[in-house]
Amino acid sequence: MISSRANPRVKLINGLQTRRKVRQKNGLFVLEGDRLIREALACRQALNLLFVSSSASDEAMDLVQQARDLGVSVEEVSDDVMQYCSATETPPGILAVLNQLDLPVPADLHMAVVADHFSTPGNLGTLLRSAAAAGAQVVFLTEGTVDAYNPKVVRGAMGAHFRLPIHSLSAHQIGTRLAGLSIWIAEAGPGIPYSQVNWTGPSAIVIGSEAYGPQPALQKLGKPVAIPLAGGMESLNAAVAGSVILFEIQRQRGLL
Amino acid sequence: MISSRANPRVKLINGLQTRRKVRQKNGLFVLEGDRLIREALACRQALNLLFVSSSASDEAMDLVQQARDLGVSVEEVSDDVMQYCSATETPPGILAVLNQLDLPVPADLHMAVVADHFSTPGNLGTLLRSAAAAGAQVVFLTEGTVDAYNPKVVRGAMGAHFRLPIHSLSAHQIGTRLAGLSIWIAEAGPGIPYSQVNWTGPSAIVIGSEAYGPQPALQKLGKPVAIPLAGGMESLNAAVAGSVILFEIQRQRGLL
Repeated sequence: MISSRANPRVKLINGLQTRRKVRQKNGLFVLEGDRLIREALACRQALNLLFVSSSASDEAMDLVQQARDLGVSVEEVSDDVMQYCSATETPPGILAVLNQLDLPVPADLHMAVVADHFSTPGNLGTLLRSAAAAGAQVVFLTEGTVDAYNPKVVRGAMGAHFRLPIHSLSAHQIGTRLAGLSIWIAEAGPGIPYSQVNWTGPSAIVIGSEAYGPQPALQKLGKPVAIPLAGGMESLNAAVAGSVILFEIQRQRGLL
Repeated sequence: MISSRANPRVKLINGLQTRRKVRQKNGLFVLEGDRLIREALACRQALNLLFVSSSASDEAMDLVQQARDLGVSVEEVSDDVMQYCSATETPPGILAVLNQLDLPVPADLHMAVVADHFSTPGNLGTLLRSAAAAGAQVVFLTEGTVDAYNPKVVRGAMGAHFRLPIHSLSAHQIGTRLAGLSIWIAEAGPGIPYSQVNWTGPSAIVIGSEAYGPQPALQKLGKPVAIPLAGGMESLNAAVAGSVILFEIQRQRGLL
């Protein structure tokens, strides 16, 4: 049983949960709760380490056994250590450390998403979750977007990280990767109504931050598309706007 | 200048920001930031009181003048008092107290939303914002749903409160109010694909909590509708699921 916050692994996990630099330097991130860890195993992701405390549920204890059978190093930790390692107020009592993912971008790109300057972790997590669920093949993140391995992003994305390539690139690099696709820029202002766009060909959708909209270097890559709004409302939540357009793409393609 | 946290109005505002009971007992709520206060004035909502501190922006100072011209009681407060009255970490330096709204439910109901057991304030705020923007006529909240005047709900809803009737009712009362409408229950599991439903007649959509789904008393009011998901994802964020269906309704009706 680990009960000291000074334990090197405990200190590392606390750093992974609180600092982007620590995540990037080590190429690691943390999953909390049995649901996300189960998703990771279902997607054949290797766990580097599992921490479990007395507050773990019965489902979590099944997972611990499964992890042990796979040869994962499992440590029991005190409630205090778990609290220190947790990014939530009420820790679920189980967490795992994983390597950051590097899923390849498919060669035949026909449905890509760009999240530009998303600064709210919950919003980026929600967009990733929707993108994976709508069948997007990749999400590109621009500089200024919150880290995809921020614990709130990971929690909101509900396993999208294991199923969807997520890559951080410059606007210029994104332009190169999206060559040949119809690129649409989601705008709170004027634009072609999203349901009148023909989405059946290879397409990319750029979603900007609510505060500033998409950056100029991305805007010039494509044409503006808008979601017409009723009742004098000015805009939608950025993750919602992206989701509405992504599911319209899937509806037109009749794939789901 | 008010600089004491013991001032009765300061104590009241702190209570309104932190406790549902205080909001309900007084029938009041708080708006923070010049954008939301501007929305309220644009929708001809009366402000009972305006607090402003040194951190207010130039736009906020314009609003202060506008409020004074309307006869609103304006108080300058110290930064410490503003911090104490604010529900945010970095207060925008302007806040207003308003009466809770009681917009009437239209008689010819043809597009209604039910939010059942939404426990995350940000999710309810996002759903209210989308409902107003998609042209819904009313949102009913069940018991167990977070208070619509919780500061995080108000912030996420971005002015929906002034444009959309929001009423808390029991499942039984909701059944009565929705008589004559086609009622659809959004499910993470099996159901008719949402884009194959004919939404052109009077319709209501029930969105349940992500954790538990819609309660049985609501489920038996209607038929299950589902958003087909790709890539092995199990579900969408509840506010996103509601938004995708609401904008499909608008798309089919061709109103936007």
